[in-house]
Amino acid sequence: MRQYETFKLKFKGAAPESSQAAVNLEAAFTVGEETVKVKGFYAGDESYAVRFYPVKPGCYTWKVTGAVEAEGKEVCDAAVYPGMVKAEETHFAYENGEPFYPFGTTVYALAHQSEEIIEQTFASLEKSPFNKVRHCIFPKHYSYNHNDPELYPFEKKEDGSWDVHRPCFAYWDHMESIIRRLGEMGIESDLILFHPYDNWGFATMSMEENLVYLDYLLRRLSAIPYIWWSLANEYDIMFSRTKEDWYVIEDYVAANDPYHHLLSNHNCMKFYDFSRPNITHCCIQTPAMHLTGAMMERYGKPVVFDECEYEGDIEFNWGNISAFEMVNRFWKGCVAGGYATHGETFWSEDEVLWWAKGGVLKGESPQRIAFLRDIISELPGALKPWQEPIYEDYGEMPDNGTFEIFMALRASLTEEERINLEWKDAQYAGHIEDEVFLKYLGNQCCSVSAIRLPKDHTYKVEVIDVWEMTRTTVYEEAKGKTMLKLPGKAGMAVLATRVE
Amino acid sequence: MRQYETFKLKFKGAAPESSQAAVNLEAAFTVGEETVKVKGFYAGDESYAVRFYPVKPGCYTWKVTGAVEAEGKEVCDAAVYPGMVKAEETHFAYENGEPFYPFGTTVYALAHQSEEIIEQTFASLEKSPFNKVRHCIFPKHYSYNHNDPELYPFEKKEDGSWDVHRPCFAYWDHMESIIRRLGEMGIESDLILFHPYDNWGFATMSMEENLVYLDYLLRRLSAIPYIWWSLANEYDIMFSRTKEDWYVIEDYVAANDPYHHLLSNHNCMKFYDFSRPNITHCCIQTPAMHLTGAMMERYGKPVVFDECEYEGDIEFNWGNISAFEMVNRFWKGCVAGGYATHGETFWSEDEVLWWAKGGVLKGESPQRIAFLRDIISELPGALKPWQEPIYEDYGEMPDNGTFEIFMALRASLTEEERINLEWKDAQYAGHIEDEVFLKYLGNQCCSVSAIRLPKDHTYKVEVIDVWEMTRTTVYEEAKGKTMLKLPGKAGMAVLATRVE
Repeated sequence: MRQYETFKLKFKGAAPESSQAAVNLEAAFTVGEETVKVKGFYAGDESYAVRFYPVKPGCYTWKVTGAVEAEGKEVCDAAVYPGMVKAEETHFAYENGEPFYPFGTTVYALAHQSEEIIEQTFASLEKSPFNKVRHCIFPKHYSYNHNDPELYPFEKKEDGSWDVHRPCFAYWDHMESIIRRLGEMGIESDLILFHPYDNWGFATMSMEENLVYLDYLLRRLSAIPYIWWSLANEYDIMFSRTKEDWYVIEDYVAANDPYHHLLSNHNCMKFYDFSRPNITHCCIQTPAMHLTGAMMERYGKPVVFDECEYEGDIEFNWGNISAFEMVNRFWKGCVAGGYATHGETFWSEDEVLWWAKGGVLKGESPQRIAFLRDIISELPGALKPWQEPIYEDYGEMPDNGTFEIFMALRASLTEEERINLEWKDAQYAGHIEDEVFLKYLGNQCCSVSAIRLPKDHTYKVEVIDVWEMTRTTVYEEAKGKTMLKLPGKAGMAVLATRVE
Repeated sequence: MRQYETFKLKFKGAAPESSQAAVNLEAAFTVGEETVKVKGFYAGDESYAVRFYPVKPGCYTWKVTGAVEAEGKEVCDAAVYPGMVKAEETHFAYENGEPFYPFGTTVYALAHQSEEIIEQTFASLEKSPFNKVRHCIFPKHYSYNHNDPELYPFEKKEDGSWDVHRPCFAYWDHMESIIRRLGEMGIESDLILFHPYDNWGFATMSMEENLVYLDYLLRRLSAIPYIWWSLANEYDIMFSRTKEDWYVIEDYVAANDPYHHLLSNHNCMKFYDFSRPNITHCCIQTPAMHLTGAMMERYGKPVVFDECEYEGDIEFNWGNISAFEMVNRFWKGCVAGGYATHGETFWSEDEVLWWAKGGVLKGESPQRIAFLRDIISELPGALKPWQEPIYEDYGEMPDNGTFEIFMALRASLTEEERINLEWKDAQYAGHIEDEVFLKYLGNQCCSVSAIRLPKDHTYKVEVIDVWEMTRTTVYEEAKGKTMLKLPGKAGMAVLATRVE
C-alpha cells in the first residue's frame, strides 16, 4: 500500500444471486483514529474486488464484510506520486501541493475504437502537450461516429434491453486499463458519465438504472487518482433529464465517491449551476474566453473552457476554427488564469477524427499549446485576472460629475449592448501578485502598444509570438508604463517578470 | 434649374445688424399646386444666398422676402443625376429609384487638414471603392489629432469665445466645396454635426448656440443632395448632453431640413433610439456584425455598421484589426443586407492616419471591399437576411415534446448565454426572394460545407474567396442541399444565382 496509489484486494466468492452491480460488499480502512468505508464490487468470474485510495501514509487495518469476509493489515508507505488533482481556489493542485495546469484535449469515444486506433492515440498523446483527456463511458453516435464498439458497459437482457445489474466485466477492465495507462502518462481522465449522442439507449435509461450504473462505476473507479467526473457532455440537450435529475445524479456521485474527485457538468448552451457545493470547477462550453475573470469572481472556482470549438475543417462551425484561432483561445483563457481544452476535427474519409476517435493529430495547434504550457508551467504560481490600469493614460477623471455620468451611461446599457461591448473591449491579462504580469493582445495587430507595470518594482519584459513560438527580451529593467514596439500582427503576448 | 441639383440665388444686401446666422430671409418655390418654403442665409461680403433643391421638374415661380426682396421664374429641367439617397425599407435608393449600396469610409477631420493632405485624400478616394465618407463639421482633438485647423465654423467674440452668430464664411465655403467635390465623385458626405473630441469649446456650447449653428448649417447645406446628417459621432460620450438634448437637436434638424436628408445618430456604447420617426437608418458602432438581421427586424430600417473597428496597427483595440478582419466584417454585414464602413489607422510618425486626416490609403482591405461592392452592385436587388434551413439536415423533430423542451431550454438561457451563443453560432447569409442566395462562412475554415437551396428552382453556384478575390463556378445547375468542397480556410462565400 502506498499513499496516493490504488490499493487492491481481490477475493474469490460465489457469484451474486441477484444484481452483479449492487453487491453487498463493504470495506473499512483504518489508520490511527480515522476510518474510511468503501464499497467493493463484483469483478466477474466468481471474484470480488475492493479498491482503496490511501491519502495518508501509516499502518492500516482493513476489514471486508458482506459477500466476502476478510481482514488484514498494511503499511502504507509515503507517496512517490503527487496524488489526485484538486481545486484550490481558482486553480488546481495535486494533493502533494504541486500545481496542475490542465491543458486538455478531447477524444470522446477513445475507449470505443479498435485496438489499432487506440494505440495510435496513445502514441499521439505521448508526443502531445495534453495532460487531460475528455472521454466517455458510453459509446458515441453522431456525424463521423457511425461505428459500434466491441464492448458495452452492460450485458443485455433477453429482450435486448440493457441490464445495468450485469456489468460487462471485459468492458470495465478495458476502460480501466485506458484510464490507468493515461494516468501513468501524467494524463487525467475527464470522464464523461452521460452524453446525448446515443444510439443504444444509454441516454434514456431510468433514474434507477442510472444510479445502479453509477454505483458500479464508483465502486470500480473511485480509487483511481487520475479521474475527474464530468457528469455529462452537453447535459442540457439530454432532453430526457430535468435539472432536478442532474442534481440527483450529482448528489449521488458526490455522496458515493469517498475521495472527492473533481466534479463538474458540461453544457451545450446553458451553463450548469457551478455555485453548487459539490461542483469543484466551471466546466464550460463557449468561445467567450473573456469570461474567465467574471466566472472566477462569480464562483470562486477554477474555470476550464472544456469546449471552445475545435481546430479543423468540417462543416460544423464548432469544428472548423483555424489552428491560429485554437491557439488564440488557449492564450486568451490561460493568461487570465483560466484553462482551455483542445479538440481537432479535420475531415477524413475514414471518419477517424481526433475529437471523437483519436488516432493521429494533424493540426498545427498542439505544438503551440505545448509552447504555452511550458510558459505557464515555469511561472512561480497560478495566474489571476489582471485589470491593467489603462485608464491611467487618460489622467484623473475631472471632478465635475463626468465620472458619475460615465457610470450612469454604463448602467444604462442593455444586456445586449454590455455583452457585445465585452467582446469588443475584452482585455486578456493575468498576474501573480506583483511578481509576474502576462498580457495577451489576441487579434490586435499592434505596431505600438504598452504594458502598465507597477512603478515601484523592476521587470524583465519579454515579447512573445504565440504562433512562431519565440520569446524576445525587450527590456531587462522596466517599470511603470512601458512602451512596446510590436510587429503589427495578431498573436502577440507580453510577459513581465520581476527582477530583484 | 434642374431636378435633383442645387439651384442657387445670390443677392447683394446690407450686412445684418445683429445675427449673421439667424437672418430674416425666406424664399418660396412654387411648382403647380405645391410650394416649398426655404430659408436663405447671409454669405458675407454684403451678399445673401438662397439654395433650393427641386424634386420635381416643371415651371417654377419663386419669391424671396425679408432682408432681400426678389422674385422670378425658372424652368426646372428633368434630372440628369439620380437625386438624394433615401431609405427604402431596409435598404437605400436614390430618388430616381436606382439602388445605393453604401460602402463608406471614415475621415473624421477631412476638412480640417492642409490643402496638400486634402488633395491626397481626394486622389485616394478617386481610386477607392468608397461612396460615403463620415466627416465632421468641427475639428478634432484626440490621439494622432493634435493639429489646429486653419478655419473654424465661427468667428470669435472679443473674450475669445465662439460667436455662433458670426459664421466664418471662408470655413463654410471650404466645407461646402469639399462636400460638393465628394458628391461630384459619387461620394455621399455622412456629415457629423457634433462630436466629443473637442479642444475648442464646440462640444460644450449651450443649446441656444447649438440651434443657431444648426440653423445656419441647414440654410447653407440642405439643398445639397449628397449629404446625410449624422447628429454626432459617439453622441453618448458627449457628457454635456442628455438624451433629451439629443431629441431637441434631432427634432430641430428634422424640422428645418426641407428635403429630409438621411438622419441618424452614432453611438460609442449605447445605441441611439432608432425607432424614432425622424431616424432613417441604424447608424451603429459595434463589431457584432451578426446583429444585422435582428436590427432590421427591430427597426425596419437600413443597418449601417458605421464603426466596426479599423484596419490598422495602433495601440487602441478599435484601431488595430487586420485587413482580413476588416474585409471579414464587411462581408458578414453585407451578405445579410447590412452595410459597413471602413476606417484605417496605421501608425505614422507624421500622425496622418486615414481615419482622422485622410492622405494615402495604406491598407489591404480597400481593394477587397471594391471586390465585394462589385458583387453586391451586380445583384438584381437588395439582400435581406436569410435563415438557411440547416435544421432540415436533422430531419423532423420527433413529435414527443422534444421541440418544446428545446424551446424551453432556449428560453431558460440568461441574456449572457444567449448573446454569447449568437457570437458562436451566427450565420451570415442573405437572399433576394428566390433569385439569389449569398452565404458567407466568415472565420469558418471548411473543407466540406453545403448550401441549402430551394428544391424547386435551379441555381448557378459560385464559390468566392474574399481575400484572393476569385469567383469559381462550381455548379451550373444545382438545387436543394448542395454540397461544397472548399479550401479549408477562412473568408469563403457562396453565391447561388437562379438560372431559368
